[in-house]
Amino acid sequence: MKLNIKDLRAKYLSGEVTVKEVISSIFEKIEQTRDYNIWIYTLTEEEISFYLKNLENKNIEDLPLYGIPFAIKDNIDLVNIPTTAACPEFSYTPKKSAFVVEKLIQAGAIPIGKTNLDQFATGLVGTRSPYGECKNSINKEYISGGSSSGSAVAVALEMASFSLGTDTAGSGRVPAAFNNLIGLKATKGVLSTSGVVPACRSLDCVTVFAKELDSIKEVFKVANAYDEEDIYSRHYEKVEFEEKAKFSFAVPKKEQLKFFGDEEAKNLFDEAVKKFESLGGKAFEIDYEPFNESANLLYSGPWVTERFIAIKEVITKTPQVVEPTVRKIISSGENINAINYFESEYILKKNRKKAEKLFEEFDFMLTPTTGTIYKIEEVNNNPIELNTNLGYYTNYMNLLDLSAIAVPAGFRKNGLPFGVTVVAKNFEEEKLLSYTSKYLGV
Amino acid sequence: MKLNIKDLRAKYLSGEVTVKEVISSIFEKIEQTRDYNIWIYTLTEEEISFYLKNLENKNIEDLPLYGIPFAIKDNIDLVNIPTTAACPEFSYTPKKSAFVVEKLIQAGAIPIGKTNLDQFATGLVGTRSPYGECKNSINKEYISGGSSSGSAVAVALEMASFSLGTDTAGSGRVPAAFNNLIGLKATKGVLSTSGVVPACRSLDCVTVFAKELDSIKEVFKVANAYDEEDIYSRHYEKVEFEEKAKFSFAVPKKEQLKFFGDEEAKNLFDEAVKKFESLGGKAFEIDYEPFNESANLLYSGPWVTERFIAIKEVITKTPQVVEPTVRKIISSGENINAINYFESEYILKKNRKKAEKLFEEFDFMLTPTTGTIYKIEEVNNNPIELNTNLGYYTNYMNLLDLSAIAVPAGFRKNGLPFGVTVVAKNFEEEKLLSYTSKYLGV
Repeated sequence: MKLNIKDLRAKYLSGEVTVKEVISSIFEKIEQTRDYNIWIYTLTEEEISFYLKNLENKNIEDLPLYGIPFAIKDNIDLVNIPTTAACPEFSYTPKKSAFVVEKLIQAGAIPIGKTNLDQFATGLVGTRSPYGECKNSINKEYISGGSSSGSAVAVALEMASFSLGTDTAGSGRVPAAFNNLIGLKATKGVLSTSGVVPACRSLDCVTVFAKELDSIKEVFKVANAYDEEDIYSRHYEKVEFEEKAKFSFAVPKKEQLKFFGDEEAKNLFDEAVKKFESLGGKAFEIDYEPFNESANLLYSGPWVTERFIAIKEVITKTPQVVEPTVRKIISSGENINAINYFESEYILKKNRKKAEKLFEEFDFMLTPTTGTIYKIEEVNNNPIELNTNLGYYTNYMNLLDLSAIAVPAGFRKNGLPFGVTVVAKNFEEEKLLSYTSKYLGV
Repeated sequence: MKLNIKDLRAKYLSGEVTVKEVISSIFEKIEQTRDYNIWIYTLTEEEISFYLKNLENKNIEDLPLYGIPFAIKDNIDLVNIPTTAACPEFSYTPKKSAFVVEKLIQAGAIPIGKTNLDQFATGLVGTRSPYGECKNSINKEYISGGSSSGSAVAVALEMASFSLGTDTAGSGRVPAAFNNLIGLKATKGVLSTSGVVPACRSLDCVTVFAKELDSIKEVFKVANAYDEEDIYSRHYEKVEFEEKAKFSFAVPKKEQLKFFGDEEAKNLFDEAVKKFESLGGKAFEIDYEPFNESANLLYSGPWVTERFIAIKEVITKTPQVVEPTVRKIISSGENINAINYFESEYILKKNRKKAEKLFEEFDFMLTPTTGTIYKIEEVNNNPIELNTNLGYYTNYMNLLDLSAIAVPAGFRKNGLPFGVTVVAKNFEEEKLLSYTSKYLGV
């Protein structure tokens, strides 16, 4: 069953289908796809019934997400359901839902379950989990992307109308690209991270996956609210946007584009650029180095220390329960000097100025979401380097405080999807959504 | 001779006095006050003549600071004059002036010299300098306050119409309080720090001292400009302000006020509160702990690391040339862990939210600028603890990204002045200036 919000809502309104029927068809699908390792926890019938009861005596017209099933990355709290962050030994059962989850439920959405992820949201691959490697929705030999792996595949395989991910390095964009979805990584602080297991607390974002842009818009509207309890929450200073017939966009210089030998990806990116040009845009090649330099700081610099702080107790007391690659990365965060922090911060400040200027000159920047995709086996053989490759176009985003949307951009001959990312300044979500709409023709 | 900008300008316009006459009277005064240790360098007649020549064929009407003498703290560059930061071995001769200095000179101002400071702007006392302890302008047994010691005393003793200081912990406010001046510490990034020796690069501010509010306003208007070259420069997002007949202001709870046994200071603060109340204000006691907790981070936390980075070479290669107390403080910045940085940042983020709420509720906060003042001898006997006491009301300001103005608030019986500080959100300089004007009745 197709689960896009608009159609589902129309069917509920016409009585063509009931919420219960939708849920039960989803649970059939869950059983059929167990081998994808999508879920860490799926709600029991009794647990779901609590949310269904919530809808009784409520008017569908008052609830924008009435009966809309959604999946939650398992580093985001759902009340009374364990949060594991893909580390069973880390597991705790929260007494309340994450701020964003609560907003969605209040709007009528129905949580289906908690999804698999690269442990502690550390990874862009979807393989770093004791709950099994999450498989690509199109070809099971390939990675799903991560860290929000299960959330992406759940939507791709029609077990949720939308899902929540998180995105520190690119976790809300890479799995979108690999599963032919849209992934919105809004401005840092705009979707509250209260009730989210931190990766890098100063950078973490909650993100939304969906197949259709309408669904992304609807969920963003509901979830976007200032949260007094979240020290990183920001008031949404919406930048109004008016569509222009002619626009300009930046693309990295040819020699700075990396596809890691994936010629098809290169061609698909060229096609995306051409498509934007056919819609009134003019592409300008820019120097990508400030973005690249910033991106490199994320895992080689002091932000790994934030990951260490987030799981200090478990990694110090019981390091053996942490997935080996994740452990290797995060434990390196223990002994970083504050000198490294400030020197990195000065580099970022410099690059933020450069980005600021770039976004004054151009309407947006367009890049591949990733340069290529890998098989699960390839990643298992070379887990750190291949993961790093996947972050080339994503790792700078939160460090430079930008907003981004990952958008499907065609398929390789083997059926695997390619994706591009539209990048704008913070609080420019309206612009991102508008150009995405133009590009997708929706 | 009185040097306030407005009167001096009137005299220049009427021909009552010439710029040369003013300068020569200043140099007489400089000779008479050598024992105050105010200056590290005073310009030669030839060096001054360059700036005087600049004014020839210029129209006074076009230059808001035509012929106005000013002093420059010696951690701020003036072209072709050595910058020492009060460490002769650190000295270099800059090829151009600091961005702010350049703006002032373009507006007609005449630099008189470079002033003494607590070495590397590390201190609130004015005693930590190989150029001698800078003496209080009212009583030479007392400290001038620091680190912008010479800049404050130069204005207090009528050798400059205004002066530039810097302010990381309170260096632009404490010397104002101790010398009966106004000291404006505007929003971080609003006065460029290009050409300033960093203390904590992410926190440093350039500040202005003057006797009259008009002078402060005039200098701020000229110096406030966006600087592309300064990674911490910010566009001035001026918050417009309309005077209110009735207003509310926050003061720390009685038990959180610290005067270190200085009963007269306590009474003078009470009087300042009463005066604001007599002008239409209502004082509300608030919890000062978020400010105190933030203040404590400045020297006990990772920001000392920025001081270390700023003078890494000199303190590593030739530690003996660094003033002993300054060396003790700054060398502790070498081995701070990034964990400390991020944990401190989380505390600050929490406290910024609290401050934000406070400034939504109240028009401003009023505190003493310092709880007390010390004799030079007292500080020499206990250099760190007494310095720390002086930062109780100042050290949080830049960490919480607030704006502030230090204002004279009466005298003790021994003739030493007391000062209060008006605190507001960033970009609220208009508000600060307006309430200060009301308070001073000017």
